[in-house]
Amino acid sequence: MHKDLVAALDIGGTKIAGALVDGGGELLVRAQRPTPPGGTGEQVMAAVGEVLVELAASPLWAAARAVGIGSAGPVDAKAGTVSPVNIPGWREYPLVQGVREHAGGLPVTLVGDGVAMAAAEHWQGAARGRANALCMVVSTGVGGGLVLGGELQPGPSGNAGHIGHISVDLDGDSCPCGGRGCVERIASGPNIARRALDRGWRPGADKDVSAAAVAASARAGDSVAIASFERAARALAAGIAATATLVEIEIAVLGGGVAKAGEVLFAPLRRSLREYATLSFVQGLEVVPAQMGTDAGLIGAAAACGDVRHARVARAGRRVRTPSAEGRPCP
Amino acid sequence: MHKDLVAALDIGGTKIAGALVDGGGELLVRAQRPTPPGGTGEQVMAAVGEVLVELAASPLWAAARAVGIGSAGPVDAKAGTVSPVNIPGWREYPLVQGVREHAGGLPVTLVGDGVAMAAAEHWQGAARGRANALCMVVSTGVGGGLVLGGELQPGPSGNAGHIGHISVDLDGDSCPCGGRGCVERIASGPNIARRALDRGWRPGADKDVSAAAVAASARAGDSVAIASFERAARALAAGIAATATLVEIEIAVLGGGVAKAGEVLFAPLRRSLREYATLSFVQGLEVVPAQMGTDAGLIGAAAACGDVRHARVARAGRRVRTPSAEGRPCP
Repeated sequence: MHKDLVAALDIGGTKIAGALVDGGGELLVRAQRPTPPGGTGEQVMAAVGEVLVELAASPLWAAARAVGIGSAGPVDAKAGTVSPVNIPGWREYPLVQGVREHAGGLPVTLVGDGVAMAAAEHWQGAARGRANALCMVVSTGVGGGLVLGGELQPGPSGNAGHIGHISVDLDGDSCPCGGRGCVERIASGPNIARRALDRGWRPGADKDVSAAAVAASARAGDSVAIASFERAARALAAGIAATATLVEIEIAVLGGGVAKAGEVLFAPLRRSLREYATLSFVQGLEVVPAQMGTDAGLIGAAAACGDVRHARVARAGRRVRTPSAEGRPCP
Repeated sequence: MHKDLVAALDIGGTKIAGALVDGGGELLVRAQRPTPPGGTGEQVMAAVGEVLVELAASPLWAAARAVGIGSAGPVDAKAGTVSPVNIPGWREYPLVQGVREHAGGLPVTLVGDGVAMAAAEHWQGAARGRANALCMVVSTGVGGGLVLGGELQPGPSGNAGHIGHISVDLDGDSCPCGGRGCVERIASGPNIARRALDRGWRPGADKDVSAAAVAASARAGDSVAIASFERAARALAAGIAATATLVEIEIAVLGGGVAKAGEVLFAPLRRSLREYATLSFVQGLEVVPAQMGTDAGLIGAAAACGDVRHARVARAGRRVRTPSAEGRPCP
């Protein structure tokens, strides 16, 4: 029998995934809906509701002890609202309240998707057993989450580790966030492809202009493609080194579609890191690929739920214990 | 009677200060020596020893329960060693062991000077009562320390919050640390003065080419002087915004000689911060001047001692309680 489960939600611009997750991180029941493109706030919430109704139809739902949500950000864990850049219908949308109406009195926890990914990698992936880690997603956007002192650090609003929008080029290009020279503006997949195209790279017969196509050209020796990845790696290195210098992480874990480029990205990243991570206490910093697959968001949402619930029992709402310390996502 | 005191040491490139500090942050006994310029490791350590011997000669020494050291960095709190950039005679120098030989069995705690400053501002200064804060010194160098979740975060090696050496200009000028485009390389006092001189600013009859002289010219309307401070403010803003985006600080406290320039620095800093701190969860970030005076290093070393000792009693060595929660620097 499954005594303690968590209902996990992973909410992004493309799909809304849900699952009942057990204490070993197994997904026992799944449900999924597409995120309504251009939908109103209520239409998107209705899709979330359908996922929850489908999960609740399972006989295992009776074992659910909490709901954990990892959402595209920014989120506001204090207010229970979300304003995902890629879900325009949701601006300060009361997601937690909406989920509560389907959750039959279960406690609901909200974190950003980068924090959820970090929780998953720390629980079962490449950051397992590490006391101080940055876990990142490099994809259409660039996000992340932090583990400090062995514990997930969602931050007061659930957004900590948001490395995609720190500036590493203070005079650089404007970023859609309103800033300038952000890591995401240089290192995201669309920006890698855009920069390659601007400098003369051309796609093959399949007309594929994704970062993955640029990575294939780079592997084949195309110098413009190589240079675009090197530039992305440089920005990531500056951002990762800044994080290490500020909070003494020992490892950076990179997941997401762009990280799948492999050594085309990781080789120049490790090289650039030596240029930016210079102080004695950050020179040992490791950079490794993520180990969790496409279910990281759901597993992490379950894990973060355990963390944040624990923190609420404690005094400050921030000192949180990871599932790896407790052995299960929620008590 | 003073039941519980801390022997505090504040070690910099110019002077070595010591004091017996009580639970209210009062400095009851003081001692000080110049840092031997160009001294060997043993010569510098001898000066530290003289300070400790002078403190130990006080009848109040019997009430000392611990020794807290805030040292110019980088430090290595795990190894008990220091390698201060501005004390060339000390490279991985076993400072903690040297202090122990004078400390009669008292526990000894080591943190970086930026961490000590943050401990002081959080205990009794501008960050008092704040759960998440960055405290910085902007002077000959740029350093800092972090308070997260209401607790000082020295990091595993005692260097966390080292904002002076994060890159905000990945293609920028080489920094003596080995990096490129570091906050310190743009915003420190000597760099503010150098940039003004390079662009045609000239000192007055007193030949003063310090950042303070540039600040005076800026207040008088000199456009080159104003521009140099604006550039420094921009780099500080990018670094502070990056910190807030990564760990959700609510306030940044600026101390040190350059911060004494006042609105010449703070006005463009607040302006630039709006450009770089763009995400919803960092838009409310405040920037304020430090409140602690020249004794901040000593008071902070005493405070950090209380923190770190508490953490050693706890399991992880990182979850630390600040004196503001305990009401005294050491139990």
